[in-house]
Amino acid sequence: MHTLTVELGERSYPIYIGSGLIGQGGLLAQHIRNKRVLIVSNDVVAPLYLNKLAAGLRTRDGDPVEVDTVVLPDGEHTKTLETLNLIFDELLARRHERSTTLIALGGGVTGDLTGFAAAVYQRGVNFIQVPTTLLSQVDSSVGGKTGVNHRLGKNMIGAFYQPQCVLADIDVLNSLPLRELQAGLAEVIKYGLLGNLGFFEWLEQHMDALLARDPVLMAEAVKICCEEKARIVAADEREGGVRALLNLGHTFGHAIEAAMGYGNWLHGEAVGTGMVMAADLSRRLGWISAQDAQRARSLIERAGLPVCPPAEMTPEQFVELMSVDKKVQAGRIRFVLLRNLGDAVVESAIDPQLLRQTLTAGERLCC
Amino acid sequence: MHTLTVELGERSYPIYIGSGLIGQGGLLAQHIRNKRVLIVSNDVVAPLYLNKLAAGLRTRDGDPVEVDTVVLPDGEHTKTLETLNLIFDELLARRHERSTTLIALGGGVTGDLTGFAAAVYQRGVNFIQVPTTLLSQVDSSVGGKTGVNHRLGKNMIGAFYQPQCVLADIDVLNSLPLRELQAGLAEVIKYGLLGNLGFFEWLEQHMDALLARDPVLMAEAVKICCEEKARIVAADEREGGVRALLNLGHTFGHAIEAAMGYGNWLHGEAVGTGMVMAADLSRRLGWISAQDAQRARSLIERAGLPVCPPAEMTPEQFVELMSVDKKVQAGRIRFVLLRNLGDAVVESAIDPQLLRQTLTAGERLCC
Repeated sequence: MHTLTVELGERSYPIYIGSGLIGQGGLLAQHIRNKRVLIVSNDVVAPLYLNKLAAGLRTRDGDPVEVDTVVLPDGEHTKTLETLNLIFDELLARRHERSTTLIALGGGVTGDLTGFAAAVYQRGVNFIQVPTTLLSQVDSSVGGKTGVNHRLGKNMIGAFYQPQCVLADIDVLNSLPLRELQAGLAEVIKYGLLGNLGFFEWLEQHMDALLARDPVLMAEAVKICCEEKARIVAADEREGGVRALLNLGHTFGHAIEAAMGYGNWLHGEAVGTGMVMAADLSRRLGWISAQDAQRARSLIERAGLPVCPPAEMTPEQFVELMSVDKKVQAGRIRFVLLRNLGDAVVESAIDPQLLRQTLTAGERLCC
Repeated sequence: MHTLTVELGERSYPIYIGSGLIGQGGLLAQHIRNKRVLIVSNDVVAPLYLNKLAAGLRTRDGDPVEVDTVVLPDGEHTKTLETLNLIFDELLARRHERSTTLIALGGGVTGDLTGFAAAVYQRGVNFIQVPTTLLSQVDSSVGGKTGVNHRLGKNMIGAFYQPQCVLADIDVLNSLPLRELQAGLAEVIKYGLLGNLGFFEWLEQHMDALLARDPVLMAEAVKICCEEKARIVAADEREGGVRALLNLGHTFGHAIEAAMGYGNWLHGEAVGTGMVMAADLSRRLGWISAQDAQRARSLIERAGLPVCPPAEMTPEQFVELMSVDKKVQAGRIRFVLLRNLGDAVVESAIDPQLLRQTLTAGERLCC
């Protein structure tokens, strides 16, 4: 088992990464404040892992732990205030107090909903992340961003709220549908592209083995991604500066998700295409070579991800949707682009002509 | 104008108290980050003061400020996630960014809703409190508690979130209905009872003048209450200890509000009766004399507040409703009681027999 620490002063917390961790209740029990927990899961993950997780939590220091559960419908379209209320209903009906602990068992949607519920239930209770998708293991479960969507924008309502710990069990990735594994690899590639050329090259070498779910390489990849993210979050918890780099591919990607309806394109798929668009725009700016842009596109394509935005999206629609992004400042869209492979920067003064070329390039992105 | 500071390190903020402040846009403009604000008000207060506040805010340093407004229905029953969404709708439809400022113009409900919206919109934007009721001027606008109700409990969903400043214009109290003025006086009396015997005696002396809305005495009362609250909040921002004393009368009071339907009894009315119940229980415990309990009841009664719980509430209903209070720890209800007049303490080990006597005393409370 790897153990990393996200260094945030009094809000520091450990990330456990390894095989067979979900059944090890003792790992989590030390992070529970009283003898009650509510496990929040979804109807896809719960049948597979809920009993195993709950069984491991039944006792703590010899005392019984009261484990309540709530199983929500799955999918990005459920990440709403209404679903959040289902968690509050359960917490209040069962009289959970301020000293309770919420445990998120599921992917990014479950983690974001549960984390936000924990942030605002009785103005803040403990929570633990048990991410069950590659995407949530390497990205959304680390860093404390929680929240829900609004019909006019993704993640528009939420809180920065840190968990007590994150438990990433690599074994659960074996039950992940291939498409979701691939979506997770988009965020994995992101860490290489934005700040770690060596890791990018490691991924070029091992992409086939990762797609085959090699457990040792997969644990290594999750560990490196969590290290990268933990480093960035520790430097900038509330996204005043460097943390914005984690949004590589996300400005374009969020627009695709919003246009196509949340969940029709998976988040990772939209980010994959978004990174190809960011590489393309970086090339047009003369920052990276055509060869490097092609190299970025190629790795994303090898991961089985889409590298071309939906044909039905117009440039105007992209600009419209990108303008409501949280990263907009003083009306200007802020892009995360590549100065080099493995070196991302934030830039908002983009020539509209070049942007338009990227938005209309379609299948010729990075070519 | 009095200016106090709530000392919370980097989250410190000023409270301005005085006459004619709402029209002084310059006071608020210095606390706005960009050139946009959203004023959130309600349909009772907006017709009286919204234009005046907005007019004062139209410029800042010579630049125009874009002032959007949203007017919500009034009343405790509107303090819900659904109403919160109306604020988000407006913010997103008008593309307010992370650098925007929300201004709450109204009573406690408006302040709690707006503060919570600010806490979670794009994971946190600036906000300013312009409380227009006595209750919100002396209590809810200071201290950073924000949130909404759930059908199973009051203030169960929320955040600790501090404003950039609070502007308490004493003149607006002239348009306050008498019943709301009286409800506000309950929280004023609370500060005397819980920790300032001198202020309690000052209130005994000046209660009639306060009911007649003497502006100098009213400003003095608001200032003392804000000083008391600021001191307690500075010592204990997140209610780990001494801040719990501010809940004097609230454990009983919340049960009354919940039983009667939020808003049928005003919050201050329920707190007034709740304080009489707390004094009664303190007397039964032998902590305060019958004479002091009577003195507490008498001042509350002179303020025009109810001093007897609803006849239809059973002891079982009280216990049931008090058990879902946020202050419950390990299943035990925590009461704020009086060791002496002007000296409150938290106590959870209460003889159930004595509690039952208080819950069934009805009109004989403190007698």
